[in-house]
Amino acid sequence: MTITITVFERSPDQGKGLARDMRVRWALEEVAQPYDVRLVSFKAMKEPAHLALHPFGQIPTYEEGDLTLFESGAIVFHIAQRYAGLLPDDANARARAITWMFAAVGTVEQPIIERQVAMFAEGDRSWTAERLPLIDDRIRDRLGELSTRLGDANWLDGTFSAGDLMMVHVLLRLRRSGILAEYPNLDAYVARGEARPAYKRAFAAQLEVFTAESTR
Amino acid sequence: MTITITVFERSPDQGKGLARDMRVRWALEEVAQPYDVRLVSFKAMKEPAHLALHPFGQIPTYEEGDLTLFESGAIVFHIAQRYAGLLPDDANARARAITWMFAAVGTVEQPIIERQVAMFAEGDRSWTAERLPLIDDRIRDRLGELSTRLGDANWLDGTFSAGDLMMVHVLLRLRRSGILAEYPNLDAYVARGEARPAYKRAFAAQLEVFTAESTR
Repeated sequence: MTITITVFERSPDQGKGLARDMRVRWALEEVAQPYDVRLVSFKAMKEPAHLALHPFGQIPTYEEGDLTLFESGAIVFHIAQRYAGLLPDDANARARAITWMFAAVGTVEQPIIERQVAMFAEGDRSWTAERLPLIDDRIRDRLGELSTRLGDANWLDGTFSAGDLMMVHVLLRLRRSGILAEYPNLDAYVARGEARPAYKRAFAAQLEVFTAESTR
Repeated sequence: MTITITVFERSPDQGKGLARDMRVRWALEEVAQPYDVRLVSFKAMKEPAHLALHPFGQIPTYEEGDLTLFESGAIVFHIAQRYAGLLPDDANARARAITWMFAAVGTVEQPIIERQVAMFAEGDRSWTAERLPLIDDRIRDRLGELSTRLGDANWLDGTFSAGDLMMVHVLLRLRRSGILAEYPNLDAYVARGEARPAYKRAFAAQLEVFTAESTR
């Protein structure tokens, strides 16, 4: 069955790979599954046809036969369940890898999104300059704890898993802020993720969409 | 094997059932599994013994034999995988239920936590009164979309699932704000969750901890 995902017609990050379809592309590349891409404009994202696929009017979505999924964590989990390569076989190790997937989107990403909201939705407000350092400190709390747990390991729990895939991508969104670089082991962890051939193929594919659309 | 979870020694919500151990208690009640509880103080949560269980120094954690998990979504998922009653058998329906679990913690909870952070971590800041309505509007964006998707159904996708359990508990945190009441079908959805016998047993158990500790 053909897998089709939706992605931004014109990614707001200009092809830097920070949109959430990157997580799904990366997962599909890790398990060597081909997929089709359907581009969605910001306008179309909030229209009934797309809302039928994604109740919150976002990307990515995932279609495969009569199955439709949304939410990048859930899609990556589905891919990891169905194809070998992203979750360990041992039941306990598998449960721990899934824990890191939830930790990535539930705990670590929370203040990172708050930072983005502050910059984009409240960027013109008088308080934002004074608030950003408070948010950054909340991000540092999380990164400090994560850095301690990772220590000098390559991945969060043994071999690379869907938990690492999600966590690396969540952390990537911080790189431009300079905060990630304050934690050398996390910075190296993210770089290890980016160095994976599957990541590189996924990155190239999303960049190609942006390049093609912007020169149209 | 005995299941042991950690909970606040003294819940900041004074037993209103809003702490995240409630999700785990509720899930365990739904699948009729007994569990032990270990109380953790705010101080102990950030000490090495607890950090070994939970890298971010929070509750709940879940211990069962040599398996240790953290992150309420991951724990509820583990329980739902292991015991019948919280995930449908059909593979596609199961994937969709898991999608709602991720949507609860990744998408819907995001602005709700932001509201809590604004009130507790930035409550004394000059901008907070002016910011709260902006946050509330972002919450309304999500709730409006969720309300549209739910429509007049009882649960988000067919029968009650771990996805509903997570979503109901995320929404519960909004009740005191009055925002939930603006969406009558979501308000009724949350009330349906609270009316479940398993929810009631879980609620009583967490309230008992608070009552016992506060009269000690």
